[in-house]
Amino acid sequence: MQKKSEYTEAIKTKYPEQVVIAIARDENGKANPVTLGWTMIVSGKPAMMAIAVAAKHYSTVCIRNSKCFTIAFPSEKQAEAVLFFGSRSGRDIDKFAQFDCATESAVEINSVLLSDAVANFECALESETVAGDHVIFVGSVVCAHVNTEPGKRLYTVGPGHKMGAAG
Amino acid sequence: MQKKSEYTEAIKTKYPEQVVIAIARDENGKANPVTLGWTMIVSGKPAMMAIAVAAKHYSTVCIRNSKCFTIAFPSEKQAEAVLFFGSRSGRDIDKFAQFDCATESAVEINSVLLSDAVANFECALESETVAGDHVIFVGSVVCAHVNTEPGKRLYTVGPGHKMGAAG
Repeated sequence: MQKKSEYTEAIKTKYPEQVVIAIARDENGKANPVTLGWTMIVSGKPAMMAIAVAAKHYSTVCIRNSKCFTIAFPSEKQAEAVLFFGSRSGRDIDKFAQFDCATESAVEINSVLLSDAVANFECALESETVAGDHVIFVGSVVCAHVNTEPGKRLYTVGPGHKMGAAG
Repeated sequence: MQKKSEYTEAIKTKYPEQVVIAIARDENGKANPVTLGWTMIVSGKPAMMAIAVAAKHYSTVCIRNSKCFTIAFPSEKQAEAVLFFGSRSGRDIDKFAQFDCATESAVEINSVLLSDAVANFECALESETVAGDHVIFVGSVVCAHVNTEPGKRLYTVGPGHKMGAAG
């Protein structure tokens, strides 16, 4: 049976929640990673993925600049990177310069991949839609990559940015 | 280290994947549930959620008709309902008539809730955006509900519609 609840309480049933790191370059070429929980696949053929980014976040500037972005599925070993990239702004710092995280060049877009992620998806920007305090960016997946050493994907497993594997 | 991969291979790293049941009424008032893996929160204030629905699916007709939809988080006990609602078309049958699944009236929108779900979110349609072979529907959450008996949320835990709890 259901009982009416505040949204903020009801949404706590969402865990484990997927987490991705989206990466896009700003006008100076700086690759800026951001941690996002709000993401989904949106099309099968052609393959497309979407992310919702806070409208005020620097990543919106970067994605609009470069018209492309990487979506990386971090591995369970990357919790510290996930927390770092999700708690700093690329307006103030160069996140990849301040946090040791291996990257390699993307193949089809002007961005980077996370070498230790479980998988990386290179996305060409297709559309953006404002939704409340966030912007939904949809990208076509133009190239995909997996880790040569399979690992488990990282999730947010509970409130307060509690990270871990799930499954 | 990353190696280039087919998208269809790389995306297999997505599991466990969240699953929701979205419900909207058609023009005859029939409530039509559909199982979706492609969903995300898109705004914090105001609270908004999005779903990606195959363009050709009957649910797109229902959502456009009623301008609202429920998002239910099924419990781990609802795997059969999830598989049934995800494998039939509301064009052909009345899914709630053919599969025994307790429902109750929504409060703020003209839809129903799943009584045994972990949580239900009543959404008023805000926008739709075509993305490849799917349509992204964004809704404002106008009312939320949780189960009076807390349970675990259901996930797709592997390829081939393998369902289970996660976390």
